[in-house]
Amino acid sequence: MKDAYEALVEHYRDIKRLTSIQATLEWDQQTKLPPQGNDYRAEQMTLLAGMIHQLKTDHRIDDWLLAVESSIGEDPPSSDAVANVRELRRQYDRNRRLPEALVKEIARCAATSHPIWIQAHHDDDFKSFQPCLEQMFKLKRQEAEALGYADCRYDALLDEYEPGAKTAEVSEVLARLKQELVPLVQQIAASKVSPPIEILSRRFPIDRQEQFAKFASTSIGFDYNRGRLDETHHPFCTELGPHDIRITTRYDENYFNTAFFGVLHEAGHGLYEQGLRTDQFGLPTGSYCSLGVHESQSRLWENIVGRSLEFWKLMFPQAQSHFSSLSGATAEQFFQAVNDVRPSLIRVEADEATYNLHIIIRFELEQAILNGDLSIADLPEAWNEQYHQNLGIKPDTDRNGVLQDIHWSAGLIGYFSTYSLGNLYSCQFFSAAEQEIGALPPRFEKNEFRILLDWLREHVFAVGAGRTSRELLYQVTGQSIDHRPLIQYLRHKLLPLYGL
Amino acid sequence: MKDAYEALVEHYRDIKRLTSIQATLEWDQQTKLPPQGNDYRAEQMTLLAGMIHQLKTDHRIDDWLLAVESSIGEDPPSSDAVANVRELRRQYDRNRRLPEALVKEIARCAATSHPIWIQAHHDDDFKSFQPCLEQMFKLKRQEAEALGYADCRYDALLDEYEPGAKTAEVSEVLARLKQELVPLVQQIAASKVSPPIEILSRRFPIDRQEQFAKFASTSIGFDYNRGRLDETHHPFCTELGPHDIRITTRYDENYFNTAFFGVLHEAGHGLYEQGLRTDQFGLPTGSYCSLGVHESQSRLWENIVGRSLEFWKLMFPQAQSHFSSLSGATAEQFFQAVNDVRPSLIRVEADEATYNLHIIIRFELEQAILNGDLSIADLPEAWNEQYHQNLGIKPDTDRNGVLQDIHWSAGLIGYFSTYSLGNLYSCQFFSAAEQEIGALPPRFEKNEFRILLDWLREHVFAVGAGRTSRELLYQVTGQSIDHRPLIQYLRHKLLPLYGL
Repeated sequence: MKDAYEALVEHYRDIKRLTSIQATLEWDQQTKLPPQGNDYRAEQMTLLAGMIHQLKTDHRIDDWLLAVESSIGEDPPSSDAVANVRELRRQYDRNRRLPEALVKEIARCAATSHPIWIQAHHDDDFKSFQPCLEQMFKLKRQEAEALGYADCRYDALLDEYEPGAKTAEVSEVLARLKQELVPLVQQIAASKVSPPIEILSRRFPIDRQEQFAKFASTSIGFDYNRGRLDETHHPFCTELGPHDIRITTRYDENYFNTAFFGVLHEAGHGLYEQGLRTDQFGLPTGSYCSLGVHESQSRLWENIVGRSLEFWKLMFPQAQSHFSSLSGATAEQFFQAVNDVRPSLIRVEADEATYNLHIIIRFELEQAILNGDLSIADLPEAWNEQYHQNLGIKPDTDRNGVLQDIHWSAGLIGYFSTYSLGNLYSCQFFSAAEQEIGALPPRFEKNEFRILLDWLREHVFAVGAGRTSRELLYQVTGQSIDHRPLIQYLRHKLLPLYGL
Repeated sequence: MKDAYEALVEHYRDIKRLTSIQATLEWDQQTKLPPQGNDYRAEQMTLLAGMIHQLKTDHRIDDWLLAVESSIGEDPPSSDAVANVRELRRQYDRNRRLPEALVKEIARCAATSHPIWIQAHHDDDFKSFQPCLEQMFKLKRQEAEALGYADCRYDALLDEYEPGAKTAEVSEVLARLKQELVPLVQQIAASKVSPPIEILSRRFPIDRQEQFAKFASTSIGFDYNRGRLDETHHPFCTELGPHDIRITTRYDENYFNTAFFGVLHEAGHGLYEQGLRTDQFGLPTGSYCSLGVHESQSRLWENIVGRSLEFWKLMFPQAQSHFSSLSGATAEQFFQAVNDVRPSLIRVEADEATYNLHIIIRFELEQAILNGDLSIADLPEAWNEQYHQNLGIKPDTDRNGVLQDIHWSAGLIGYFSTYSLGNLYSCQFFSAAEQEIGALPPRFEKNEFRILLDWLREHVFAVGAGRTSRELLYQVTGQSIDHRPLIQYLRHKLLPLYGL
């Protein structure tokens, strides 16, 4: 059994070496690749995707797994080996159902769609992107069919990002969330109080923004000796090695939030990656649990920490030393401004209260397309209609509407709902942490972020993907997924800000 | 035969996809990798090197080659297929002689040595780098033995970089060159004329240097839609795809030459890569001929073009508009300054006359180490002694001596002499171009670089590695390798500058 497990581990470490090379090429594509380099990059990505799929579906994996599984009683059930074998079995059985040709086709479609999406977004030209999107949804529908599902086609795709989660269950919790969010947003909209958001639209020189964002992300614990920050069209965090976690952002010289909260968000992802067990790198127990759990970390640091009054009491003098345009303003005003609630068109710049409504729209549209109830040609109109219904506003352009996100061009379909799951988890984790170690915001004001990070490392990060997100949540909080802690957190912070 | 050739082509295109991924990881390692990312990068590189070696030594290659070779009469002998098959046969037979374990060991040694060399260079600490160098020479000696050789061990390594070249032949032409260079350098040293080199040590803000270098490299034809420029410790040019050619440089705010001529040099390499046949990408007829031919292009654009009076008559007003420190100086003075001849310690900053003496020193030391006549421990002293003998100066530190070059840490042993071959070829090619299209420098003054580039594309680039450098040189110039055109070029330009 020992030899089989060792062979399995070495095999998956090789797979990880290749997927991390893939991640490096993707990072390069989005940050550094010359304009004409895209076609060949697509060829490289297609080849790698095929090689990785071959390794992931290698028949020897089954032999190794069987050998280990049959002798599993010899290990205590909590050991890394047991957790790794359970998850690798799940992944292997899943991967074996995907034909290599389809995997390569999706990789090729993603790589060639990327520059077309960039251009379509730039030109506000949905039509030029439509064929890519049709092809991608067609391929992902094939993927769902190949994977199989009990309940609905969407389950097969969701399972890739949130193992074990079911569409029905996610629909239910998001419906409850929406039921509470809509009146909350309306209540705030009716308030006569208006946060001083003009502060956020002053002049913020880009080099200073980069410095300040690096300062703040370093303060919360992101380690730039094991990472870097670059500029991209669409911000992201990617893991290129156990000590190579890269984040990106975009800058707007006349708007503070875009880059700063973008960096806090991606640094939150980065803290998770930098806090995973390096001795288990490439194995489930050294990998992130699910995308929902990943997002819980980005939202926790971006919002629960980064939009708290105490954070700004600490950081605002630093902000003023970076930006002369902030002289005269106060930490309290800045705190109010960065918590402004206002229905808007762009998801990544939405406030915490309206954010999940953006997600619910995408979650429902994806299902409609996959089920054949909505054509890609009709998607822009359906998108705009949904925004009108849920947020009371209508996109002026497709650029500010259906073209805004990178995800579908990259084949990330079934992914969006994990953003809302992350928001829910983040409040549940944060409550559990405070129950154990006491109120945290007073610590933030004293630049003591480490106590929260250490708690997360111990309780969340160290588990990796050794548990499903459902199991992890229960293990850490004693609860299943619940929309109430998020609603409570929002009401507690936002209502007083609006004199309610 | 057609099917076998197609299979061969597809196989080699896959190999190229992987080697270009390898090149991307190397580029990233030198430009972007976070400090702690190196160990894992070494793991990735080792894995890739092994995979590539397996593909390069795949037994099916032999079958495909045999099938094509046996039917070769059906094709006219000048066709791409014939040239490709000839060169692929040579490569395959060579690769089959290398054990995979050795190939991986060399890749691992190179990846782990890189940061150690950087640190040793920074700290001027040869001792910390010595074990890496001992290991690398040991591995390369094993490589030479595995490859086999008729005459001397060095032949086996030289053949990797300059296919078909022999150590004896290179030694002979370099000896002749040295015989003429030493008195030329002495004659200039005895002159009372002193170029106004103070101009080059004024203040040149780094962002302006980048702008100006991009302007000049674009003028000679480098296409930034198919490439980019970054900053590295050691400048290089690398091909990551048919339309993705990246160059790097380093900047010194108080010295003009480092970045500017570095960029022209690397852009010269880049023009070659950007001018190769894209339809043959991944095959010999779409690859560079040899490192000597590669270097002929960098030196041609850096020196024959970039250090000509006519080039500076065109460029100097632009330089003045970028650098206020140049006001008052003239194009003629600048031309004199950038052609200053003076024995110096750093190869990459050496003038054209003394440069090849730096190479001859390395060429001889490498042979001594490989033959067991010199130990690594004794290398720094031998290096300093050689500089004293050949250039009349002695390095003050190992940093300015034996630690200055990246090559040995990367396993590039047997490589240096191709720099001098490149210098010789560049003058032979340039003479041939002028014989056909007339005097070229007057064109430079009119910003007409395209005529030279087009000539090179047609006569040199389009051949790729379909010929050996010896065959290419003969085809283009009607001559074999000859030191006299270089000597004549140097005397013609330099002696008048020194009133001789």
